[in-house]
Formats: sequence, C-alpha cells, structure tokens
Amino acid sequence: MSYSTRYRSRQQQICDYLGAESFDVGVILDFEGLRNHSLRYLSGQPEDALLFLFAKGESLLVPWDVPLARSLATADKLIPYETYSRSIFECIKAIFQERHIGRAELSGILSYPLVKAMKEALPGVKMECRDGGIDETIHVMRMVKDSEEIELLRQACRITDDLIEAVPVLLDDAETVSEEQVALFLEAEARKRGAEGMGFDTLAASAKRSFAIHCFPNFTSDRFGTEGFSILDFGVRFTGYTSDVTVTVARGPLNSKQEAMRAAVQQAYDLAKTLCEPGADPVQVGNQVQEFFENRGFHMPHSLGHGIGLDAHEAPLFRRLTRNDGQKKPLLLDGMVFTIEPGLYDPDQGGVRLENDFLCTEQGVEVLTSARILYL
Amino acid sequence: MSYSTRYRSRQQQICDYLGAESFDVGVILDFEGLRNHSLRYLSGQPEDALLFLFAKGESLLVPWDVPLARSLATADKLIPYETYSRSIFECIKAIFQERHIGRAELSGILSYPLVKAMKEALPGVKMECRDGGIDETIHVMRMVKDSEEIELLRQACRITDDLIEAVPVLLDDAETVSEEQVALFLEAEARKRGAEGMGFDTLAASAKRSFAIHCFPNFTSDRFGTEGFSILDFGVRFTGYTSDVTVTVARGPLNSKQEAMRAAVQQAYDLAKTLCEPGADPVQVGNQVQEFFENRGFHMPHSLGHGIGLDAHEAPLFRRLTRNDGQKKPLLLDGMVFTIEPGLYDPDQGGVRLENDFLCTEQGVEVLTSARILYL
Repeated sequence: MSYSTRYRSRQQQICDYLGAESFDVGVILDFEGLRNHSLRYLSGQPEDALLFLFAKGESLLVPWDVPLARSLATADKLIPYETYSRSIFECIKAIFQERHIGRAELSGILSYPLVKAMKEALPGVKMECRDGGIDETIHVMRMVKDSEEIELLRQACRITDDLIEAVPVLLDDAETVSEEQVALFLEAEARKRGAEGMGFDTLAASAKRSFAIHCFPNFTSDRFGTEGFSILDFGVRFTGYTSDVTVTVARGPLNSKQEAMRAAVQQAYDLAKTLCEPGADPVQVGNQVQEFFENRGFHMPHSLGHGIGLDAHEAPLFRRLTRNDGQKKPLLLDGMVFTIEPGLYDPDQGGVRLENDFLCTEQGVEVLTSARILYL
Repeated sequence: MSYSTRYRSRQQQICDYLGAESFDVGVILDFEGLRNHSLRYLSGQPEDALLFLFAKGESLLVPWDVPLARSLATADKLIPYETYSRSIFECIKAIFQERHIGRAELSGILSYPLVKAMKEALPGVKMECRDGGIDETIHVMRMVKDSEEIELLRQACRITDDLIEAVPVLLDDAETVSEEQVALFLEAEARKRGAEGMGFDTLAASAKRSFAIHCFPNFTSDRFGTEGFSILDFGVRFTGYTSDVTVTVARGPLNSKQEAMRAAVQQAYDLAKTLCEPGADPVQVGNQVQEFFENRGFHMPHSLGHGIGLDAHEAPLFRRLTRNDGQKKPLLLDGMVFTIEPGLYDPDQGGVRLENDFLCTEQGVEVLTSARILYL
C-alpha cells in the first residue's frame, strides 16, 4: 500500500478528536449516492470505501476496489469490502463486534434507516450520528488549506485562466461553435495541461437556455455565443482540487433590460470583492450583495459564493444557515479559498453570472482567476 | 409549467400507494450528495428539488432552479426552494405544518441527523423513514420499463453500438491514441448522434491501469490499447436513459495468464447469457458465474450485473442482499433492462471485463449492445 505522511497526519488529528470526545472509533465513508471527498482527504482513496479511525491511532480502510486502494491509499490496515458482502451495514456491524467497540461516531451522511438498524443490531454500542461532530471536525480542517493544497488550487486556477483566454479566440475563429464544442474543447485542453479532469460537469448554456441557473442538459449541439447572454461555468480539477469559474458571453446588441442586468452583476461583483477581506463574515457579505440587487429591483436566486477544494462546493458558505448542518459560521481566514459569483436570471432575457476564485491570506484577498463578462 | 401525462400518472400511482398505507404525504428529493433519479422519473425535474406527493392526489415541487422547473417539470404546484432558505429541514417542516400533516413518509435516503431533528421539531407528526416503503415502490415501478422507456434505452444502445464500431477504427488509424482521446471522442460522437451526454464518467484504462475495477483518474494522457489489456467502460444517455458497456482491448502477444483470464471472462459471459432467461433469479445467476470462476482458480471482485435506466446502477441487482436495502429480490421479468459484465483483475496482468446490455421480454432475453473483447 502507498504511504503518505500527509494522510497519516490528518488521520491522527481525527483519532485525537475521537479520543478527546471519548469515542473508540469514527466511521467516514464514500459510496454511490453518498459522495464524500473527506474519504480522499483522509486516506487518498478517491471513492467507494469505508474508513474506520480508532482513538488509539489506528486506521482501517475497507475499499470496494482493492487494487486501486493498494496503489493509492494510506491506511494501517486494508480489508476488502467484499468480505462484508459489499454491505455498509454488515461491515460496520462486524468490525464493531470484532473490536469490542463501546462508543462510536458515525458520519452524519448515513441514512436514517441504516443508522436505526445499526442501533437495533448493536444495542450494546453507544452510537452517535449527528450534525457537527466528526464531519464538522473534518470540514473545519478542509476549509483552511495548507500550503500544498493552495499550490494545487493555484495550478488548477492557472490552467483555468489559460482556458478562459482561449474562449474568445474559439468563438472568433469559428463561424458557428456549439455548446458541446466549447465544453469538450475545455476538457481536452485542461487535460492536455495536466488536469485530472473537470471539477464538475461543464455548463455551457446558449442565450436561449441561460435563463436557468444550471442549464439542463449541461450542453447540447445548440450554437453558443449568439445574441444575448451565453453562460459558461466550469472547473479544472488538479490532483483532486478544483477551480470554479463562470464566464458570461454577452453578444450585442443587448436590450436595455439586459444591459441593466449586466451592469448590476458587474457592480455586485466589484462590491463583493471590496467586502471580502480577512475577518469578514461571508454570510454578511452575501446579504449585502443581495441587498444591493434588491435596491435595484433585482433578486439573486442563489448564494453569492462557496468554498472550493476537493469539493466544488464546501465551507465557507456565503449564506445563512437555518439549522446546524455541520458547519460553524466561519469568518474569512488565511488559507480559505472560495468563489464569488453574483448572477441574475430572467426567463425572457437570459442569465448573466460572473464567477472567480479567491484566496484569503493575512495580507488580503487575492484573485486567482480572471473570468469576466466577455463582449462580442 | 410543462405538463406530461406520463409524470402525472406516475405521481398518481405513488399517491395511491400513500393512501393505501394511510400516509397523508410522501417526500422524495434529489440534492448534491443525495442524488436520486426518482425525482426525474416522477416529475421531469432532473435534479435539486423536493417533491411532495399527497395521498389526496396533489403534487408539489420545491425546486432550487425555478426557471428550469418551469420549463421541464410536471407538478400541480411549485414553490421556490428559496422560500425555505434553501434548507431541506425548513422546507419539510413548513409544509407539514401548513398542511396539518398527521402521518408522513420520508424517502429513506435522508440522513439520520436530519430525520431525527424533524421528528423532534414536529412531535405531532407520525413520520416513517424506512427501507422499502415509498423508495421501494418507486424502484419497483422503475425496474420494469414501459414501452417508451424501452425505446429510449434502445436508442441509447444504438448510439452505443455505433461508438463500439468506431473504437477499432480509431485505434487502427492513429499511431498512438491516448485514453483521453478515446474518451472525448466517444462523448463528442455520442452527442453528435443526439445523446444527452454520457451516462457516467467514461473509464479508459490503459494496460498499466486496467488492474483496477474502476481506474482512477478515469482517463489520462497515457497511450490506450498498448500490449496487454486496456478497458473502456462507458454509457450513452439518451433523454435520461443510459446504456452501460465495457470493451476490453487485448493487444497481443498475451502471456498464458492473460490468455487464461480472457478465456475465462468470455466463457463466463457466454454462460451468463444462457442462464439469463425470463423467470431466472439474477442472484442465482451471479452465484453460478462466480462458482464457474472459482472452479478455475479465479475470483470476480464485483457483481455480475445490474439494472440500467435513469440510473447507471438500479434494480434488478445480481448480488445477494444482506439487509433489506429497499429492493425486493426480483426475478427477471418482461421489461427489465440490465447489464451482464463478468471481469477479472490482476495487479500484474491487468484487467479484462466484457459488458453488454440486455432486455428481458416474454419471449426471451435480447442483447441490445455488441461490446466484445477486441483483439489487436
């Protein structure tokens, strides 16, 4: 098995947390329908595995794909998922019994029926499954990037900027370029530059589909960049870490409503940039930008931004949390990387969004990408 | 809002189920981290929404992307997710209170902390959240395809076959073709032929990476189709419905171990084909094929196959279920569409897998795709 001191040290931090909270073991997992990059963050195994972390400092990985785990993952011990009939329930039950676990914390992403069945099957084990707890501990670690993670995000953003520069050339060169051609061009070029892939499905919405926040299907054979607003939202994944930007292509002539939307988004973006400084409260910043829009008769139907990293959406969030959903309300701190992405959408006029990635340092907030509203 | 009698009739079936089980309402949802194509199956909304179905026959959709819902979804009523601060918890709580719900069923994909918090916040509402129940009712409907769904799957499979035919030409034409070129070629060609996109991330593993069941990253700039086994696993999504095939490219000379692996996979595939007839038990078929491998000193580390449809993995499954996880153990019936995909993997020899899609009819089992082990 591979061995990385980075993963080992992250595991140890969680083991220490578990010890301090008097748990014998914590369980983190990622499977289809329950995607969770914390598995990769802690072990290097990209997906489809359970990770048991014991308070005494041991780690045990139960992967679906054993050969993949042997080549990528860091853990003290590996047991094939097949041993437990590829059942999360059977796996947790068997390991808790074998290890004589008294008190355990399960990731809060597990379903209600599964945890209820676990509690009934193992009445002697005190099982905690909650908001906050182990998930929040990991999210707080993930939210503040270390120097290696920042370098990976910088690489993702450098490639992203190359692609942003290529978009107007692509639109200029070809008489007609389709959404699909733009999207597949970005992916080919990103990979050519060393990217692991795209951070999420590229969204390329021509003027007739840009009214949706996230167009569906994500791209088609329709022409891209026709009169009005076309939206291109993409991310480049570099060794796990993804950028997330949105370029709006504004092809004139714009009508007065469109011009007002465009100006409002640009001004909201500029306002957000000035508000995002070390120590700022992202929820407050989000509210101030929304207020700016509302004062001009507009309404932004999504949040102003979000953290990026192994996930395309992670902490810090720029919206009010109505329930403790595993994230404390953090201020912008040294090492946080996040998007700012004001947008407005109209069923008749289309949509306009401008999104770039930012790094908070002690000195201030640095823009990592150079997406803009392109006039053609 | 759009209106489709197909979605309306599916909603009515669930409303009838809820009435028969004495529930006032059932809640189905799809969000990031909780992907669930049952939302699209029931409403046409592809993702990011809650769907409330009331026993008295009404449907209420709460979408994140309202303009998208207005253009695609069928529901009696629509309320923006924003109304509830984009919180699943706040949304369910408010609607249950407003509608004076007495007894409700929540989809079993919801997390333990969320359902526990719901039960505490609404002690007067009897809330069921279980394996089986509403999720199983929908999965049983989805498992047996109607004639329209079969036609969409046939279209996906026809495009898939075009692509399969293009692979040897692509490998022949180019001196060196990379995993990335093959994968992006498939996507461009699929979309050119009217596909909505790929059904899942294409896996293109060169000989040095095919030892993993699912290679990671899914494709790279490495050369594809070099000496040994290269694996190409992909699906074409046509109006939501996805195919799923695997072509193994075997570039000679193969050593004796590789030749034995290849022969065993081909024979296992042929055996599975003869065993899959209307009324057969897929778990039994899976066990018989595993036994075939074990008798020859091999071991298949994944299940023999699975249903396909809106999901790349759905019922019927070809493996033993160790816990009631929302699926009854069905026999192969008229209208089921599924994969057969025996595979063997070795850290030194690489991996070989052969996967095609099948439709069960009253007359027998029809092969819908023509993937094969390609000799080069």
